Amino acid sequence: MNLTILGCYAATPRSMTNPTAQVLEIKNRMFLIDCGEGTQVQLRKNKLRFSKINHIFISHLHGDHFYGLIGLVSTFSLLNRNNDLHIYGPKGIKEVTLLQLKLSNSYTGYNLYFHELESKESEVVFEDDKVIVTTIPLVHRVYTNGYLFTEKPDDRKLNVDVAKDYGIETCYYQKIKSGNDITLDDGRVIPNAELTFDPPEPKSYAFCSDTVYNEAILPIIKDVDVLYHESTFLESEAHLCERTMHTTAKQAATIAKQANAGKLILGHFSTRYGNIEIFKEEASTIFENVELADDGKVFEL
Amino acid sequence: MNLTILGCYAATPRSMTNPTAQVLEIKNRMFLIDCGEGTQVQLRKNKLRFSKINHIFISHLHGDHFYGLIGLVSTFSLLNRNNDLHIYGPKGIKEVTLLQLKLSNSYTGYNLYFHELESKESEVVFEDDKVIVTTIPLVHRVYTNGYLFTEKPDDRKLNVDVAKDYGIETCYYQKIKSGNDITLDDGRVIPNAELTFDPPEPKSYAFCSDTVYNEAILPIIKDVDVLYHESTFLESEAHLCERTMHTTAKQAATIAKQANAGKLILGHFSTRYGNIEIFKEEASTIFENVELADDGKVFEL
Repeated sequence: MNLTILGCYAATPRSMTNPTAQVLEIKNRMFLIDCGEGTQVQLRKNKLRFSKINHIFISHLHGDHFYGLIGLVSTFSLLNRNNDLHIYGPKGIKEVTLLQLKLSNSYTGYNLYFHELESKESEVVFEDDKVIVTTIPLVHRVYTNGYLFTEKPDDRKLNVDVAKDYGIETCYYQKIKSGNDITLDDGRVIPNAELTFDPPEPKSYAFCSDTVYNEAILPIIKDVDVLYHESTFLESEAHLCERTMHTTAKQAATIAKQANAGKLILGHFSTRYGNIEIFKEEASTIFENVELADDGKVFEL
Repeated sequence: MNLTILGCYAATPRSMTNPTAQVLEIKNRMFLIDCGEGTQVQLRKNKLRFSKINHIFISHLHGDHFYGLIGLVSTFSLLNRNNDLHIYGPKGIKEVTLLQLKLSNSYTGYNLYFHELESKESEVVFEDDKVIVTTIPLVHRVYTNGYLFTEKPDDRKLNVDVAKDYGIETCYYQKIKSGNDITLDDGRVIPNAELTFDPPEPKSYAFCSDTVYNEAILPIIKDVDVLYHESTFLESEAHLCERTMHTTAKQAATIAKQANAGKLILGHFSTRYGNIEIFKEEASTIFENVELADDGKVFEL
C-alpha cells in the first residue's frame, strides 16, 4: 500500500504548494482521492500513470478539492482513454462536470460513471474482490465525506512442505488456500491450520478532510492502520475552527489516539504557517506516530 | 504596452508547459486574456498583482482556455477582493461559473459581472477613456472570439517654450493639449499645431486563438501593431487543421502579412513538437517580424 501526496495545502494553489489530491495504490489498484486544480500536472511530475486511475473519490465540492477534476476528465479524452472512469462525490458533481463538457462540445470517448453521494450515514461505495471503500461522513461547511479503504484478507499461505508430506495433489491447493480442511484418501482429516500460514494482516487507510473535530467518526475508523486527518490550524488558531469548520493538529492527534490508529498523517495545512514541522510537534504531544504530508511525498505503508 | 505570456501551449497542461493565458498591460490597465488551468499559479510565478485584474476576456469554452477561471474567481474571494470583476466570454460562462460557486456554497465578496457574447459580428465589448476592446469573430469547433485592444490617442504634447513665448497662461494648457487653437488678448489666433507636438501613435494588440485560417478577420485587424495568432501545427501537419480547426505557422504568417501587422507572435503550439523554433522558421518564409510566445516570456511592445 503506497500513498503519494500530490497536494496537501488548504485554499489556493501557489507556486510551491498544491491543493488536496493524493493517490492510494492498494492491492494493485490506483485510487485518486480529491482533485484540486493542477492535479493532472502533479500526476505527471510524480510519474504516475494516468491510465491506471479508474476510480476518483471526491470528498466535497470546495474548489481546493475538485477544481482539477474537469481538466483531468478532459485530458483522459485527449489521451484516448478507453477504460471506464468512476467518480464518487457529493450530489452536483455530475451536473457540473457534464455542463463543462457540454460547453466545450467535447464528450468523453470512454464511459464516465458518477456515483453521487447524499447519505449522512457511512455506506459502502466501492467493493471488488480485493478492496472495499466506505464513506466516513464528516462535518464541514458543505456536505463532505472522508473515505475508508480496507483490504480484504488474502488467501491463506500454503505450507507446501506439509502438503507434500501428506501426498496432497496440487489440484487441492486452492481449496486449502481458501481455508478448507482436507480429507485424505485414508479418511484422515487434516485441519487447515496445519496446512497453511496466516496471510498478512489486511491493511486499512482512512482519508478525513475537511472536517471539524468529530468523535462520531471513531467507530468507522477504529483500529485503522493509517489515518490521514486534516489539520488546517494549530491550537493557537483554534478559535478559527468553529467558523471555518476545520481541525487543529492537536485535535487530529486526539482523534488518532481515540481511534487507536497505527499512524497519523497530517495534511491540509493553512498556508499562513511558514514551517509545517510545528504541526508535528503539536500533534506529537498527544499521539506518538505522526508524520507530515507534503507535496510529492510517498508513504510506503 | 507589455504582454506577459502565462501559457501558450495547446491541449493539456504538463509539467513544464501551460495552457493559454496572457496578461496585457496597456495604459496602466491589466487585462487577462484566457485562463487555462493553473493560471493563478502562473500569475504568482510571474509576480503579477491579482488585484490589478478587473477584466478577463475568454476566447472560447475549451478547457485549455478557461478551466482556470473558477479557481481564480474563488481565490479573488479568499484574498478579500473588493473591486468589481468583469468577465467577457461565450454564452454559458455565467451558468458554469455560478454553478461551481453554488456547489461550493462560496459566493464572491465582490461584484461579478458577466458579459456573455453571442454575436458573429465584431462588436465593442469594453471602452473607457484610454482603451477600446473589440471582438474578432473566429472560426473554431465552438463559438470563439479573438480580441482587439486599441489605445485611444493621448492628449497632444504641449510645447511649453512656444506657449510661454506667447504669454499664454497655464490655465489654458489643458485646452491646448486637447487640440484647440488659442485666441490671444490681441485677437491673434495661434493654431494648435504651433503649440503642440504629436502624441505617440496609439498602439493596438490583436489576440487570435483558436481559429482556422480565416481571411474574414483581416478588415478588423488591419495595420495592428502586434498580432498574436495561434499556430498549433506546422505545414507538415496541415491536414489536421481542417478537422481540429487550427492554423499552421505559415498560415498565421500569411494572415499577419495580409493584415500589414507590425509584429507577429506565434503561440498555442501543439505539444507534439519538441522544439518550437521550427514554428519561427516556417513563418519567417512569409513574414519577417516573427517572435515566439513562451511561458513566462514578457514582450515590451
